[in-house]
Amino acid sequence: MNPIYLKILGSGSALPDKERFHSSQLLEVAGKYYMIDCGEGAQIRLWQYVGKTSRLHQIFISHLHGDHCLGLIGLISSFAMLGRNNNIEIFSPPGLESILRPQIDFFCKDRDFEVVFNEFSSYRHETIYQDKNLTVTTLPLKHRVPTCGFVFQEKEKELHLNRAMLDAFSVPVSAMKSIKAGADFVDERGVVVPNAKLTFPADKSRKYVYCSDTVCLEKIIPLIENADCLYHEATFLEKDLLRAKETFHSTALQAAKIARDAHVGKLILGHFSSRYKTTKELLAEAQSVFKESYVAADGATFTF
Amino acid sequence: MNPIYLKILGSGSALPDKERFHSSQLLEVAGKYYMIDCGEGAQIRLWQYVGKTSRLHQIFISHLHGDHCLGLIGLISSFAMLGRNNNIEIFSPPGLESILRPQIDFFCKDRDFEVVFNEFSSYRHETIYQDKNLTVTTLPLKHRVPTCGFVFQEKEKELHLNRAMLDAFSVPVSAMKSIKAGADFVDERGVVVPNAKLTFPADKSRKYVYCSDTVCLEKIIPLIENADCLYHEATFLEKDLLRAKETFHSTALQAAKIARDAHVGKLILGHFSSRYKTTKELLAEAQSVFKESYVAADGATFTF
Repeated sequence: MNPIYLKILGSGSALPDKERFHSSQLLEVAGKYYMIDCGEGAQIRLWQYVGKTSRLHQIFISHLHGDHCLGLIGLISSFAMLGRNNNIEIFSPPGLESILRPQIDFFCKDRDFEVVFNEFSSYRHETIYQDKNLTVTTLPLKHRVPTCGFVFQEKEKELHLNRAMLDAFSVPVSAMKSIKAGADFVDERGVVVPNAKLTFPADKSRKYVYCSDTVCLEKIIPLIENADCLYHEATFLEKDLLRAKETFHSTALQAAKIARDAHVGKLILGHFSSRYKTTKELLAEAQSVFKESYVAADGATFTF
Repeated sequence: MNPIYLKILGSGSALPDKERFHSSQLLEVAGKYYMIDCGEGAQIRLWQYVGKTSRLHQIFISHLHGDHCLGLIGLISSFAMLGRNNNIEIFSPPGLESILRPQIDFFCKDRDFEVVFNEFSSYRHETIYQDKNLTVTTLPLKHRVPTCGFVFQEKEKELHLNRAMLDAFSVPVSAMKSIKAGADFVDERGVVVPNAKLTFPADKSRKYVYCSDTVCLEKIIPLIENADCLYHEATFLEKDLLRAKETFHSTALQAAKIARDAHVGKLILGHFSSRYKTTKELLAEAQSVFKESYVAADGATFTF
């Protein structure tokens, strides 16, 4: 089973610096790229860490604060200069197109692709995108402006064929497709060979959850349960809980409790306030309740 | 005499990378900052290399290509978050306000300062700004869109007082101001003391010229003559002259010939095409005709 790769392009919060650019991530599933948020400088990180971007076709924007979407116009401009000819789809809360379209028309006149906007309601938990590998579902959050997280859920996979048994029962190639989908095999004499004899279990369908800027929201737990990996913002330490509440952000401890209660595989923390010189305390706080906690850093890759 | 400092924030061309962000410079004259162009990520470089920005009040944009102005909205957003309360003035060719104003209204609602737009004609050589230290004059260039360079000219400075002679002639403090401005001194008996006896020459008024994206334009030479420092784009090597012409850019050799013929103090090259892996050849080409040629790099500081 190929791993899912999550590349952190930007792990900082409102004020960027050299070490931590604004929020952006690149998820790679079965060779396809999906960008999540696109803060200023995301394209710089993309060329730096990833290079080719022809496999990127969808960008998901959690909310319309500048540190989550101001990198879009630069990225689209560079696509135009590089001669891209595949459309790019952007999914966002309402309002992005009216801001971005005039810029695209002004700065990227000479382009051979379309920018397709898909604006979703931030108040509904709904599937906004799917392809053969996965579905993307919104996760309504609570921040100062309409905000959604995203659940990337791999689709159910085909069963693995048991080649030795297929040979033993002389199963023809024409039957393989339905067997991989779960069907039994009926031979020419009418004998039924149960599917379980002919296959091994399918690979697990993995789930990645991106929880962008939000106050701590326990109601998301049933929706993110058993995720293989959860990214959750952790702008503050618990000692600054008051500030977290005022600004509609979370603490590292809160993020870790969500991760623990949702039984996720691992937790990645990010979006740290620039008031903290290191992430040591943030990580320690999270690990005190959820051991599989990690800290995002620009350029880091997580696999699951 | 305090040096003028030129800090390179971004030295790259259309496609940014980790080493070379898009065009942006910070000029420091008598403790005041002036930003020239503001490509994506300029604010990241600013926090990285300079820190405090309360002394920055004017931004000059050479032309409305994304790699010269897409960093403005991020910078303004950060100013808003940092609680800035001094206005920021932006000087640019026509069209920037109609693109940027909706973004400012959307992303920077909570701000305690105004963004004041001053749009100038790119076809006139005229003074668009002055304060007690300097004047800024546009330098019409030739690129794919309306483009201007800028001439930063220090104002004429006061003469230095010769304290010993002032004492010898018993010049009262009340007369100092006019003597520094060049007046002779007339004592109470009506005797005239020539100004030259009471003063030393004023410091030289320095000149910095920024030549943004342009084809090589010999007609600018009289307007930039004797500049202490000239920044001139050098996107290409002379062997790629055809490509330079097609894209309305200059070669390093052309930039150096302009510098030589305008008798400038030093030449800084920048805006290098990403096709060149190093700047060695670009520098060698320029130095072959103008020895005082230097290569811009993000973070480099030039003084004059």
